[in-house]
Amino acid sequence: MKFFNVKTVDETMAVIEEQFAPIHEPVRISILEAVGRILAEDVFSREQVPPFARSTVDGYAVQAKTTYGASESLPAFLDITGNIHMGKRAELPLVEGQAQYMPTGGMLPEGADSVVMIEHVEEVGDLLNVYRQVAPGENVIRAGDDVRVGDRVLARGSRLRPQDVGVLAAIGVTEIAVYPIPVVGILSTGDEIVPPDKAELSPGEIRDINSIMIGARLAQLGAKAVYGGIVRDEYEELLTRAKALFEQVDLLLLSGGSSVGTRDFTVQVLEALGEPGVLVHGVATKPGKPTIIGKSQGKPVVGLPGHPVSALIMFDLLVVSILRRLQGESNEVPDKRSRARISRNVPSAAGRSDYIRVRLEERGDELWAVPVFGKSGLVTTMVESDGIVEIAANKEGVVEGEQVKVMLFGSSY
Amino acid sequence: MKFFNVKTVDETMAVIEEQFAPIHEPVRISILEAVGRILAEDVFSREQVPPFARSTVDGYAVQAKTTYGASESLPAFLDITGNIHMGKRAELPLVEGQAQYMPTGGMLPEGADSVVMIEHVEEVGDLLNVYRQVAPGENVIRAGDDVRVGDRVLARGSRLRPQDVGVLAAIGVTEIAVYPIPVVGILSTGDEIVPPDKAELSPGEIRDINSIMIGARLAQLGAKAVYGGIVRDEYEELLTRAKALFEQVDLLLLSGGSSVGTRDFTVQVLEALGEPGVLVHGVATKPGKPTIIGKSQGKPVVGLPGHPVSALIMFDLLVVSILRRLQGESNEVPDKRSRARISRNVPSAAGRSDYIRVRLEERGDELWAVPVFGKSGLVTTMVESDGIVEIAANKEGVVEGEQVKVMLFGSSY
Repeated sequence: MKFFNVKTVDETMAVIEEQFAPIHEPVRISILEAVGRILAEDVFSREQVPPFARSTVDGYAVQAKTTYGASESLPAFLDITGNIHMGKRAELPLVEGQAQYMPTGGMLPEGADSVVMIEHVEEVGDLLNVYRQVAPGENVIRAGDDVRVGDRVLARGSRLRPQDVGVLAAIGVTEIAVYPIPVVGILSTGDEIVPPDKAELSPGEIRDINSIMIGARLAQLGAKAVYGGIVRDEYEELLTRAKALFEQVDLLLLSGGSSVGTRDFTVQVLEALGEPGVLVHGVATKPGKPTIIGKSQGKPVVGLPGHPVSALIMFDLLVVSILRRLQGESNEVPDKRSRARISRNVPSAAGRSDYIRVRLEERGDELWAVPVFGKSGLVTTMVESDGIVEIAANKEGVVEGEQVKVMLFGSSY
Repeated sequence: MKFFNVKTVDETMAVIEEQFAPIHEPVRISILEAVGRILAEDVFSREQVPPFARSTVDGYAVQAKTTYGASESLPAFLDITGNIHMGKRAELPLVEGQAQYMPTGGMLPEGADSVVMIEHVEEVGDLLNVYRQVAPGENVIRAGDDVRVGDRVLARGSRLRPQDVGVLAAIGVTEIAVYPIPVVGILSTGDEIVPPDKAELSPGEIRDINSIMIGARLAQLGAKAVYGGIVRDEYEELLTRAKALFEQVDLLLLSGGSSVGTRDFTVQVLEALGEPGVLVHGVATKPGKPTIIGKSQGKPVVGLPGHPVSALIMFDLLVVSILRRLQGESNEVPDKRSRARISRNVPSAAGRSDYIRVRLEERGDELWAVPVFGKSGLVTTMVESDGIVEIAANKEGVVEGEQVKVMLFGSSY
């Protein structure tokens, strides 16, 4: 089969950007289930955090000016007028010349502006000897230092990390709107493909690697995989099975077979599922060229290449981007790929993006990316690799020692 | 409270290494649930992958020597004697002077050693004109090229990635032994701490950030969190509640309160839970010093610092290491932290490991780590950060432009 509509990676990304968006309305969930989900709303705070001035040390709340000039040889003397309990307001306000005991995290008494650490005082009955001066605000988090009323603490489109969930707890927001978890159907195609648990292979048969591997990647990403089983290279059967699975899912992946027949049928099925059909018919990459992206009823359909290495690389490059779009994730995700130096020259054709499997090695303080070569049919080359280096379409390779960006395996997104 | 037994990070890691190991026997699970789990056994292959020589292209199976010297102007002529179907053995073996049509992924006929791409031939009835020579093995994956019988495909102690699950599928291993998912109990302590959903805070009260944030981190890591609720700073109550939770879990975290009282009680509770009790009483880090690690009945107990920034950093540094030990993960995990350049001088005390929150910025081709400063009580500083840079105990800071390692947030492990 010829690929008549091969697009570059940038062009393909632009298609994904333009064509795909959340399919479902947002749902409200508890913050206890929120990690990894994408916010479907901006979150503003109706409270300040902390709600009151807190001590960051164990010590004595004071007015800073009453300590000015205090030293080991010339302490300041203050009257101890209280002992503040955690979670309670001070019984008395604090006036000049006074000190009240403060635990870490306690609420400063009215009138106090700073805290002297316990290490820098001595109690003598009701009298406090202060051996070091403090500045106003010292050892204190002021009310609203962390979050002010009206602050946008989190933006729509951001993927929630543990600390983001923490800030929601801090401001008392215990439910948030997120887009539903995408449901992804996987249909394996190819006359040669048999389930992994088949005990004895007949000549010509190969166990299904791709749908199991892609299902594992989906689980890692927090998406829901629905396995549609294995379909033979027969147009009618493939269409019937694909249609049935497509109705249940948000994204359909056709994966597995690598024969011409399978690839032809993928395109035909995609066209038969509905408008607009095929959007990208081949991507200018190595490996991964025979990748097909389409859309029907607003939902994406992707035909992944048959070789497992190509399938996983194209999944990470393209399907992950589609999943992000379906969940409304913001595009403003900075490029945080790890930097490393490539350990040898790798040539590449201009106009094509190459994806090189690499193993990482520490050499002194430097991180080096050592290419793992091998045909893209060999899944063990991925097992030996720590990540993927892209050689961009506008480059004719990389030279030994050049800095490259590494997409590490095993990260959530 | 004084920390009488402060250990460096290296010493603390050595304690973790020495003291903790899997508590439960391995369980057998399906490869469909295996991603992210730690193998409790070496996996050897009883099969070769692929089980037969496969074509990597659409074309014609041939004997390479019959194509030697073939060119556009002087093609080789071969007899077409077959059309191989996917998933089937060829009907006839191939002898010198013959060619059989091969789809990508198909099984080579007996007697063939290479495949000529369809682009380099022309069919003329039963005759094949071959316009380019091939070498033996060209466009072929030989039987066993990916996995040989007896190969150790995966090692005990490795965390399974999608490609690792893929290789298990490839060799027909659909069940594997892994250590059970750790169950982690979280008990929030502190008189000032109230549940995040409390509508109106009273003076002195603070919503529980840490246990929610740590619970989210555990979910991200694939561990199971059991929330034990909030306990007041009262020794008897804390002991009773801690004991009850400890019985149900593999690892107990005491988290939340930052007062002296809470910290004292954590140590007492830990000693009361059983031998050997406290192992690490303070870690030479900033932030995070008031971290306590202990062990009772073979199970770890960790008292995390009260400030949310300190709690999350110490969790990632120490608790993640403990979780790895509980799951039998191999120590041979290479240091794959991202490299970046630090954007300004950051001083640090020798003998102490400092953890600096950083935001990542791309400047030209370089990745820069920009420190995010702020007291460790401010959870929003973590929201603004992309990761953490360690300034090791043997360094007195880093200078602008120096290469540093960044522990990125959001990775699974």
